[in-house]
Amino acid sequence: MTRVLFAAKPKTWAEYRAPLTAALAETGVTAEIVTLDDATDPATVDWIVYAPNSALQDFVPYTALKGCLCLWAGIEDVEGNRTLTAPLTRMVDTNLTRGMVEWVTGHVLRHHLGMDAHVVNPDRRWDGTPPPVATDRPVAVLGLGVLGAACARNLAELGFPVTGWSRRPKEIPGVRSVTGDDGLRDALSGARIVVLLTPHTRSTENLMNARTLGWMQRGAVLLNPGRGALIDDEALLAALDGHLGHATLDTFRVEPLPQDHPFWSHPRVTVTPHIASATRPASAARVIADNIRRGEAGMPMRHVVDRTEALT
Amino acid sequence: MTRVLFAAKPKTWAEYRAPLTAALAETGVTAEIVTLDDATDPATVDWIVYAPNSALQDFVPYTALKGCLCLWAGIEDVEGNRTLTAPLTRMVDTNLTRGMVEWVTGHVLRHHLGMDAHVVNPDRRWDGTPPPVATDRPVAVLGLGVLGAACARNLAELGFPVTGWSRRPKEIPGVRSVTGDDGLRDALSGARIVVLLTPHTRSTENLMNARTLGWMQRGAVLLNPGRGALIDDEALLAALDGHLGHATLDTFRVEPLPQDHPFWSHPRVTVTPHIASATRPASAARVIADNIRRGEAGMPMRHVVDRTEALT
Repeated sequence: MTRVLFAAKPKTWAEYRAPLTAALAETGVTAEIVTLDDATDPATVDWIVYAPNSALQDFVPYTALKGCLCLWAGIEDVEGNRTLTAPLTRMVDTNLTRGMVEWVTGHVLRHHLGMDAHVVNPDRRWDGTPPPVATDRPVAVLGLGVLGAACARNLAELGFPVTGWSRRPKEIPGVRSVTGDDGLRDALSGARIVVLLTPHTRSTENLMNARTLGWMQRGAVLLNPGRGALIDDEALLAALDGHLGHATLDTFRVEPLPQDHPFWSHPRVTVTPHIASATRPASAARVIADNIRRGEAGMPMRHVVDRTEALT
Repeated sequence: MTRVLFAAKPKTWAEYRAPLTAALAETGVTAEIVTLDDATDPATVDWIVYAPNSALQDFVPYTALKGCLCLWAGIEDVEGNRTLTAPLTRMVDTNLTRGMVEWVTGHVLRHHLGMDAHVVNPDRRWDGTPPPVATDRPVAVLGLGVLGAACARNLAELGFPVTGWSRRPKEIPGVRSVTGDDGLRDALSGARIVVLLTPHTRSTENLMNARTLGWMQRGAVLLNPGRGALIDDEALLAALDGHLGHATLDTFRVEPLPQDHPFWSHPRVTVTPHIASATRPASAARVIADNIRRGEAGMPMRHVVDRTEALT
């Protein structure tokens, strides 16, 4: 009998209880799932299914832990936790990648096609000037991890000239790879639409600041489905009052975005409620269950996080 | 010296004059381009570059005509013209297909992601429920010609389960092909989003009428980037007051859409100004010039229209 602790908010547990139980049963692993509300001896827990906003932050008592399976794609709030010594896996769910590609492709096309002027058109304006085709609309994707690479590839397939910025050079068909500070300036200054998909690390905190926003073109659009902390909010608001065309933001430093935050009222900002990288319980539960099965069978787990940078 | 008559409205000529002259020069064909305003003897015209809304409707005087090269993808207003006996070609421009794929993909994703509720959100509502992924959102594409097939393929690649309805069965990767009246009912009743891309023929006039709209699901969305006449406007308005979720329309029986048309004010209708299948002069001129070069060299022209159905 394997013991799995589900450490997340009660709302999350309500969503995952049925699918996780079903997914574990399907793998053939005999498991008991407990929550933080159960009086379980931490030393008897084999696996922790983990949401970084859980009450559990001290992993020291979990002395027999075989692995911590994060429910989120973004692991920056747990990867630096020194009390966790067992392997940490991140959520890489086909549906999560799929949802991100859909959000990014949809919002790139929305801005590309000038859709807002048609969705809201009280003056019944008929301007038949077609938008340029995608091949004439350069896009930059900052961050080429699993999500960024999938989005960049899809945009390139639609015909957009895509420049991808990442720490190390990447080879993605149809995507021009750039790195470093010069590469960032190159990517930002050449693009009409910029997509932020870097992880949030110490080096990407406020990646978009007064200096880097200043590299963006007049009228260019910024999409942030990545992490709120990638953007200096004040600098973005100033840029939107100046040369920037629009910002469509899905992630924020505080969520839900507070009702009095100026993003809500700025005419050049669209807020979407953190739906781009939403994890769907049914498919995420299968990913978690499969990793527990692999771990129990002595096989290497998938999507283990390299914590070298976070822990140094 | 080849004589090319450019028969279209003055606005179109203004857009095409420079690109068509340049494209013909590039092909090496020595050509003189005239317009309907020039006093040209019709019997000396070799080629007509043609917009179906041109003043020229009687082709009889053009006794030496080698071909009529339509600037539009939709040739229903010329294919049945019995005074035209020379070969008729339609516009198949990579950029036109590209633009259509962009419009269709963009508006499918807009409805799929529920974007409108974020673009216009005066109450600052934050509802973090993610949309289903594309694999759970069936789409139907009616018409699998060059444009319909390209759109269906792209939607299938994004993960949408796509059913394609066409006169004859078609094999497109990832697209379920259906035909006939039963196939139409199957496609319409199974889809959350329906895309109209059939040509306008006698058999597709009012394809979407009270009966067929009644087959669509409660809350389903209709996209029409095809032809205005595919829809019975009154029946659509009635369906929108009833079970239909939304209609996003790019083509209309009269264009620009008259200011007093009820589509403008209906809360469940989005009007886009015939931009989905817009021909871009630079690339269209190259397609026309290449066909004139082929014709002058005695090679078969591309995209010759089979007028059998239209002329019987």
